Amino acid sequence: MPVFTEYSASSRDLRVLPSFAPPLPRLAPTPRVEGGDAQYEVIVVGAGPAGLMLELLLARYGLSDESLLCIDSKASTLKSGQADGLQPRTLETLKSLGLVDEILTEGCQMWQVAFWNPSQDKAKIIERTSLVPDVAVPARYPHEVTIHQGRIERILETDLLRYSKRGVQRNTNLLDVKIDEEGDPDYPVVAELESEGCRRKVRTKYLVGADGAHSVVRRAMGLRLEGESLDHIWGVIDLIVDTDFPDIRRRCAIHSPAGSVMVIPRERVATGDYLTRLYVQVPGDYKPSSDRRTDGNSSGPAPGDARARRSQVTDKTIFEHAAAAFKPYYIRPKTEGAVDWWAAYQIGQRVTDRFSVKDSKGVNRIFIVGDACHTHSPKAGQGMNVSMMDSCNLAWKLAYRINGLIPTSMNSAQDAVLDTYQTERQTIAQQLIEFDKAFSSMFSGKIGATEDGVQGLTHEEFLQVFSQGNGFTSGCGIEYPDSVAVDRSINGSKNPITGTDYLSGLLRPGRRVLNVRVIRHADGCPRDLQDDFPSTGRFRILCLTSSDLLDKEATSAKTLTALGEIITNFPPSIIEQVVIHPRLSRSFMWHDIPYEVKKYSEMSFYSGHEIEDVYATYGVDPSRGALAVIRPDGYVGTIAELADVTRVDTFLSSLIVSRRVRT
Amino acid sequence: MPVFTEYSASSRDLRVLPSFAPPLPRLAPTPRVEGGDAQYEVIVVGAGPAGLMLELLLARYGLSDESLLCIDSKASTLKSGQADGLQPRTLETLKSLGLVDEILTEGCQMWQVAFWNPSQDKAKIIERTSLVPDVAVPARYPHEVTIHQGRIERILETDLLRYSKRGVQRNTNLLDVKIDEEGDPDYPVVAELESEGCRRKVRTKYLVGADGAHSVVRRAMGLRLEGESLDHIWGVIDLIVDTDFPDIRRRCAIHSPAGSVMVIPRERVATGDYLTRLYVQVPGDYKPSSDRRTDGNSSGPAPGDARARRSQVTDKTIFEHAAAAFKPYYIRPKTEGAVDWWAAYQIGQRVTDRFSVKDSKGVNRIFIVGDACHTHSPKAGQGMNVSMMDSCNLAWKLAYRINGLIPTSMNSAQDAVLDTYQTERQTIAQQLIEFDKAFSSMFSGKIGATEDGVQGLTHEEFLQVFSQGNGFTSGCGIEYPDSVAVDRSINGSKNPITGTDYLSGLLRPGRRVLNVRVIRHADGCPRDLQDDFPSTGRFRILCLTSSDLLDKEATSAKTLTALGEIITNFPPSIIEQVVIHPRLSRSFMWHDIPYEVKKYSEMSFYSGHEIEDVYATYGVDPSRGALAVIRPDGYVGTIAELADVTRVDTFLSSLIVSRRVRT
Repeated sequence: MPVFTEYSASSRDLRVLPSFAPPLPRLAPTPRVEGGDAQYEVIVVGAGPAGLMLELLLARYGLSDESLLCIDSKASTLKSGQADGLQPRTLETLKSLGLVDEILTEGCQMWQVAFWNPSQDKAKIIERTSLVPDVAVPARYPHEVTIHQGRIERILETDLLRYSKRGVQRNTNLLDVKIDEEGDPDYPVVAELESEGCRRKVRTKYLVGADGAHSVVRRAMGLRLEGESLDHIWGVIDLIVDTDFPDIRRRCAIHSPAGSVMVIPRERVATGDYLTRLYVQVPGDYKPSSDRRTDGNSSGPAPGDARARRSQVTDKTIFEHAAAAFKPYYIRPKTEGAVDWWAAYQIGQRVTDRFSVKDSKGVNRIFIVGDACHTHSPKAGQGMNVSMMDSCNLAWKLAYRINGLIPTSMNSAQDAVLDTYQTERQTIAQQLIEFDKAFSSMFSGKIGATEDGVQGLTHEEFLQVFSQGNGFTSGCGIEYPDSVAVDRSINGSKNPITGTDYLSGLLRPGRRVLNVRVIRHADGCPRDLQDDFPSTGRFRILCLTSSDLLDKEATSAKTLTALGEIITNFPPSIIEQVVIHPRLSRSFMWHDIPYEVKKYSEMSFYSGHEIEDVYATYGVDPSRGALAVIRPDGYVGTIAELADVTRVDTFLSSLIVSRRVRT
Repeated sequence: MPVFTEYSASSRDLRVLPSFAPPLPRLAPTPRVEGGDAQYEVIVVGAGPAGLMLELLLARYGLSDESLLCIDSKASTLKSGQADGLQPRTLETLKSLGLVDEILTEGCQMWQVAFWNPSQDKAKIIERTSLVPDVAVPARYPHEVTIHQGRIERILETDLLRYSKRGVQRNTNLLDVKIDEEGDPDYPVVAELESEGCRRKVRTKYLVGADGAHSVVRRAMGLRLEGESLDHIWGVIDLIVDTDFPDIRRRCAIHSPAGSVMVIPRERVATGDYLTRLYVQVPGDYKPSSDRRTDGNSSGPAPGDARARRSQVTDKTIFEHAAAAFKPYYIRPKTEGAVDWWAAYQIGQRVTDRFSVKDSKGVNRIFIVGDACHTHSPKAGQGMNVSMMDSCNLAWKLAYRINGLIPTSMNSAQDAVLDTYQTERQTIAQQLIEFDKAFSSMFSGKIGATEDGVQGLTHEEFLQVFSQGNGFTSGCGIEYPDSVAVDRSINGSKNPITGTDYLSGLLRPGRRVLNVRVIRHADGCPRDLQDDFPSTGRFRILCLTSSDLLDKEATSAKTLTALGEIITNFPPSIIEQVVIHPRLSRSFMWHDIPYEVKKYSEMSFYSGHEIEDVYATYGVDPSRGALAVIRPDGYVGTIAELADVTRVDTFLSSLIVSRRVRT
């Protein structure tokens, strides 16, 4: 192709880079820049998965390095050990950030769980009694992924560096934090930081403690992790194994006469080998110490004989107990140096009763997220997930507050939107603790007839706890309680959603929108609807038109016109619109439907019946249609009848400044 | 989780990084390091898509910065314009490199083509006469993706920097290249380079010209692009449009009474807008100048009135003609500055008769890839694809040669393996030219009754050329001719493949392996089989066992044992094994099947009947089974009956040094 004349516009560099998330509009004044680093709008303490997720979301929403600081006491991301499991809902969230691909491709996808129990045949010792799907609820990714926590941190941090020049300020400790409204009421939080021997005080509007189980922020806030501690001792070890156990690449719950082991298959490493994580019970008596309240802030020794036993645990002990439980199969480290990491721990479930602290005007100023507010046993693979989800819940609320997007009536006096962080996430943390108690206790118990003749837990009981917990452990079944951000008040005949099996996808305020596959009108492209709910901080109106869409005088058309007016009443770009239509009486082009569909939803207007029956999945009658408001974190805020745009407007206006209020 | 004791192995940094491709084993001596940069094993000239792909593959295969140099005269990757289309086979190849995710997510997926033609209804002027799938052949990604070429280059270069510290040496020109066997017979190629005014001579074993349509390498080799040039003038423009044309987000072929336009929807850009590319015919008489041979090396003016017309083309003229062809719909740039890039060009199809030059011993020393050996019109979206595929074809052959992996008998005297680069890719280039001639001529012609009453091309004729070309244009239907690397000699009753519809997936030497979905035995994970053929330079034996797998005395078991011996006869890691089984008489565990399956294929052993019927797709009778050798580029090398491991061994031994030959 001999090109003759060629022209190219001056600056198109962005065309070659990965897409950037668009910042939120800002109505509040730009933050004062005082020079140096005396003052920020948000300080995030801790750069584990929870802290990095919060920092990344706030940076993507548009907070600059002058506004936002993330510190961490460590010198780098984690190199080995700790968390390794990502749940389906977390994968959906990472997808909404464009960060899931490497994880799906290079992590270990866990699709199945095998249950091994004592065999009636003494020669066999143990046998596989069940093989069930690891994830039993509808989800975009119907499996877990295991991958080293340090890799998740690296993925988050790499992306953060696209939005922040500074990234994480490392080797920096928080020494203390307090609220001091006298000094500067706009920046009432005072944090004392220490970097390489230098101490300094920094003021900020908000501070978030993502500083783990031994959180300095939590201690400074005067909050305590409260709950139970069980005496079971467990060892955990990450290594490359050599074994003839047939299910080593499946998640396994092994209850052998010699003890319990959980097998977690892990990702492939550079040598081409695959890692395996083993949770191994270190035998001993079952001595519940419930109601003994302990302060998780203390890293001192645990009382009693558990402490003595724990101090004796080494990688060798862990492996000896594992080898006994795997019999008649052999299991050993593949080579010298095949062990990546190991640790011994005691099961404990604790949660703080508050997740935030307010100033004297009732404004939430200091928050805790992740392990700082809840700790539990690792075997359900929840920790890293619930922690990152805390941040996803908090991030948009904090950004809206800082950017002046929350209506004034909601400010200071009653900090209703930010209050929902506590009400929503504390509910989930409490459920996590309850589930973990049941799961851990049962897992630590013996299954089948034990040698002393006492009948233990049945396999069926264990399987039932596992299955019932799946909605929760997958992250796909959680439901936030009523609040200004979750309106479940629609009832009876006004409710356009039929059915109650919310786990299967029915639209329900407080629950996430299940992914469905749809065909886009504009280009015939099959799409995942969740891709229209990216984590860019926007609210979306999801309009499921009724089958009258082609009648310009009918409800669908009137609603679309009215929704167009609502969208323009809010700050630019903050409300997006997604439109789905059911099977219609004839094929159509853009000019056959209301102008507002193309204007607001040219690339988010779909046929909802060609790949799967979206209306059935969402519980919507195609002859009635429905409206839903989807929050920036992908959870349904409210539901309305197709004609009831007022309900949508009212809900949005309670969360976002609208032009009518502003003028 | 209060961790008590914790241990972690010293260096696990790799655990947090994206996975690296494993280097190929090297039997040849390590290259001499002369200090400075006087000498390399390979020099790649040009860092467009073809050059970057070659450089990246060689770096991934293990060639170090001391062995490998890539130069480019430009200061950076492309900023705008030029190629934008990725075909299904190219997407499969990018997936095999782990580089497809960003392209799939952020590029524009083109699923449909709309054909617009003159309407019988004079008021409508034009109407949509057909809407067909853009890709009509089975493929892992059944669509094209359009995305800016500069972004592809950036993705390749970013990945290159994981394997090469130097990356591309920019601002460096090749002035001349020649073969000089007197000076140093091991490094017989002498390249004269110029960087920022400094000239220097560098010796290399091999040099590859990926330096585009005006290739210096081609000229220095004395090769000429030969072929036809047509007088049609076309304009191409990338911009953000404002239009009421209903199919602006679909690929469209518009044949209007006022001229022809091709619409190529493009990716979303940072503003949230979507780019569109328009190919617009600049009207004029059809004056074929076939048989006039032109030298593509010359960038001088084209003869005749085409030149005069071309010089008058500007973005305004292009847009005027587009606007006329879109009538009655309006189309205009959305805003001032909405035009990214435009160019005017003449259609020409040219190809060189040789793709490489040999030294006096018959060893291929200098190669050309991409536009340097073939140019054609851009509208079929082939250029960037065929060019990158040239590199994928050459890379493994060159790396095997350099690493001493090709049997000695194949060396120097008859350079059979490297000869196949020319025989395989020149065949494809010739087919590309033929297709492009037919497609471009028809596209430039008018459809339907023209105003002067002459009957033009029918829509059906055009559609037929489009559809028949789909196997070729998708890249999924190409077939390499017979050679040492493609053995199609198996025939009649010995051929385990039934059928001839190779486009639908039947295993066929010379064609790529179609992706199929399978369930992995080890973990129950549903997988894409193509993921077991990553572009890591390895050969794979694909063993489709017969239904006798569970009988340890039967053919499947004997074959698997024999294949294990073959694998160990070749250099370590160079042969991988993928095993699929059909529906069997009962469920089984590892100990029920030959030991070699777990030993060589623990994570690449699949059930081939649970998701789709792999045996039917590949044309294999489950009661017979089959063997295939898959080359490092994903193409089938040979096919054999399940019991005929000798055929597999013979084929592999002709390409790779085996221990039996070495000892």
